[in-house]
Amino acid sequence: MPTKIEIITIGDEILQGQIVDSNSAWIAQQLLLLNLAVVHITTIADREDAIVAAFDAAKRRADYILVTGGLGPTKDDITKRTAATYFGTNLIRDQHVLAHVENIFAQRKRAMPAINEMQADVFENGEVLFNELGTAPGLWHIHDGKSFAFMPGVPYEMKHIMSQHVLPKLAKAANQGNIVNVYILTAGIGESHLAESIQDIEAEMPDYIRMAYLPKLGIVRLRLTGSSQDADALRSEMEGYANRIKERVNEHFVTFGDVDLEGAILPIMHSNGYTLATAESCTGGTIASRITAIPGAGNVFKGSVVSYTNEIKSRLLDVNEHDIERYGAVSEQVVSAMAAGAQKKFDVDFALATSGFAGPDGGTEDAPVGTIWIALATKTKVHTRLFHFQNDRNINIERTTTQCFLLLWQQLRNLIGKE
Amino acid sequence: MPTKIEIITIGDEILQGQIVDSNSAWIAQQLLLLNLAVVHITTIADREDAIVAAFDAAKRRADYILVTGGLGPTKDDITKRTAATYFGTNLIRDQHVLAHVENIFAQRKRAMPAINEMQADVFENGEVLFNELGTAPGLWHIHDGKSFAFMPGVPYEMKHIMSQHVLPKLAKAANQGNIVNVYILTAGIGESHLAESIQDIEAEMPDYIRMAYLPKLGIVRLRLTGSSQDADALRSEMEGYANRIKERVNEHFVTFGDVDLEGAILPIMHSNGYTLATAESCTGGTIASRITAIPGAGNVFKGSVVSYTNEIKSRLLDVNEHDIERYGAVSEQVVSAMAAGAQKKFDVDFALATSGFAGPDGGTEDAPVGTIWIALATKTKVHTRLFHFQNDRNINIERTTTQCFLLLWQQLRNLIGKE
Repeated sequence: MPTKIEIITIGDEILQGQIVDSNSAWIAQQLLLLNLAVVHITTIADREDAIVAAFDAAKRRADYILVTGGLGPTKDDITKRTAATYFGTNLIRDQHVLAHVENIFAQRKRAMPAINEMQADVFENGEVLFNELGTAPGLWHIHDGKSFAFMPGVPYEMKHIMSQHVLPKLAKAANQGNIVNVYILTAGIGESHLAESIQDIEAEMPDYIRMAYLPKLGIVRLRLTGSSQDADALRSEMEGYANRIKERVNEHFVTFGDVDLEGAILPIMHSNGYTLATAESCTGGTIASRITAIPGAGNVFKGSVVSYTNEIKSRLLDVNEHDIERYGAVSEQVVSAMAAGAQKKFDVDFALATSGFAGPDGGTEDAPVGTIWIALATKTKVHTRLFHFQNDRNINIERTTTQCFLLLWQQLRNLIGKE
Repeated sequence: MPTKIEIITIGDEILQGQIVDSNSAWIAQQLLLLNLAVVHITTIADREDAIVAAFDAAKRRADYILVTGGLGPTKDDITKRTAATYFGTNLIRDQHVLAHVENIFAQRKRAMPAINEMQADVFENGEVLFNELGTAPGLWHIHDGKSFAFMPGVPYEMKHIMSQHVLPKLAKAANQGNIVNVYILTAGIGESHLAESIQDIEAEMPDYIRMAYLPKLGIVRLRLTGSSQDADALRSEMEGYANRIKERVNEHFVTFGDVDLEGAILPIMHSNGYTLATAESCTGGTIASRITAIPGAGNVFKGSVVSYTNEIKSRLLDVNEHDIERYGAVSEQVVSAMAAGAQKKFDVDFALATSGFAGPDGGTEDAPVGTIWIALATKTKVHTRLFHFQNDRNINIERTTTQCFLLLWQQLRNLIGKE
């Protein structure tokens, strides 16, 4: 039986949509690397009855139960005392933790509020997962043969405690079979077309290899997952299928690997010595921020001009003022000039530009909200594309960003071949 | 008894951390506006046993069960047939849906793969929630007195079906009491200090008003929540407490309202006629993208230069080359010059600048990874701050962005008074 993990996230703020639960995804990623499977994620309210019911259910489903949230010092945080009662243990004050909490306040040159002393309360028969980065310690407790780990909901503190304390404990419990994942990133082909074009390959796969389609706007990632004692043999079998899929989807293949389009593009550009800049109007810096989120982006990316006014388009990107007046800022002429301007200003091989009405307000009769032009300038040519999206601002920004990466990737592919 | 909602998210990609479940937060937000409470969020695998167990548990806890994910045409999507068996009904092909699916492919001028015909399969005794935006229809089925809604996991299709079909149905079921939320955004004070400073006010609150602390890096949002037949009376009582908290926290009060720091800053700047630009090195456009994610940002924000090389810092922001050589790009001198340069180039009242080593690589002996300078230039002065963060690139970028907004907000507060 593989070791089973359940994640319980405690917090009204998640149930009310105040916070997106990104902790669970991060935890699941780390566990995958240890060949451990998350079988269930539960999100519940800061309420005693909900916590007790979730613990009961999780104990039936999983071997290890990772609980995040509800460890703060304030009144709404009841996780610790509910758990102590559930485990039939007491909370006792840990002097080592207390000294650490006091020290954190001393370092910040602030007096420590008395309620913070409670942060040093830990399970009498449990283990402390020391939290160097914050005042709420992690806790570990074994109950009815199941292990419970408690961590604060603040992402960087949770990640620290997971990395320092919980993952090492779980590594020992990792199952014997090795999970192998092989990824194939495709672009510009829809999920169902992709599925149809490779259905014979999929049908040939043995039961111990599962394939999943992970679609996002404009891209579909395929993931082959299997588990075996002999990871190398399994991987090479899976790579055989992956290569057949690559050949089949032909120009829609981007790369092997668990990356986004920009994560596939940057290494290709780097290894070819290409440089990149952006001139962003409606995307407002989102393309630049997506690129620079990737370590080593500086090897390729030189920068961006976010031009949120016509004046800035002229002043920093040398877009002709009369063109803006004549054609409007959201036009093929202007977006082309932005891209060409950025290509020259940043002296790069490729420059992407965007200009559109992202909404919800704005737009003209000819170019209503959702009308978006993008352009890619090389040293010799400018390519443009026109899109008509809806009026959800953030979706429009995301779609435009993806389309820019797609356009760039297509041009790169044409330039450097299909590999 | 208030109407209870459970969200079930189906997908291996979430349990394996491939995707962050942002759908649930969005759904919860919409339901909150209808005074409906999400009591539980469950994430499970694309497996029959997990789906059946989740349906069983959800039926015990909730009145309405909203299921997202697993409606695609590909082999890994088993939600629909598992549900049909569970409900004791059949899947039948809906000709109206089939025509719509065929039409979508026709519009895209693509042949329809045969497996897409299955997208038109719906529950024999259920209701179709028509999906104008995609090929997978939403489905509605009542079983054992509980209502199940099925929606695709693609966010914009899910949002469309929720808005068009599910929310109108749920609105009728909304409970009689009205939920009232009052928010208080604070900045620059930690959760526990905040809690201690207002603990007497919190203690005075009646049981029907609950207060939650929603901390993020550098900010804490307080949410007062209550429910009453007389929403106006409750709101005015809650606003009384909120005003006392505002006075108590004094300079740490930012605004009433469920917004982030940038969401509080932009309206203040707009109403005072102030303009803003950014010059970003280590944040790579993230500050600009956070600002421009807000509708109407163009009233305040003129643009940004993302300067990822020294040459661009000189060429586009007029930073003195010799200063970069002498002090290094990550220095008080250079970040000040970037801010001052952006203030002039964009001709704005305020310009934010960042320069630092976000990691994981880079850094110097004097300025290791995590060393980050920020600056805020007005027409007459430049304010700077130095931070020493750790080596997680994305956290460093986020922290730096928050610190920039904090610095800007503090200067705005000094300029225009405390309200």
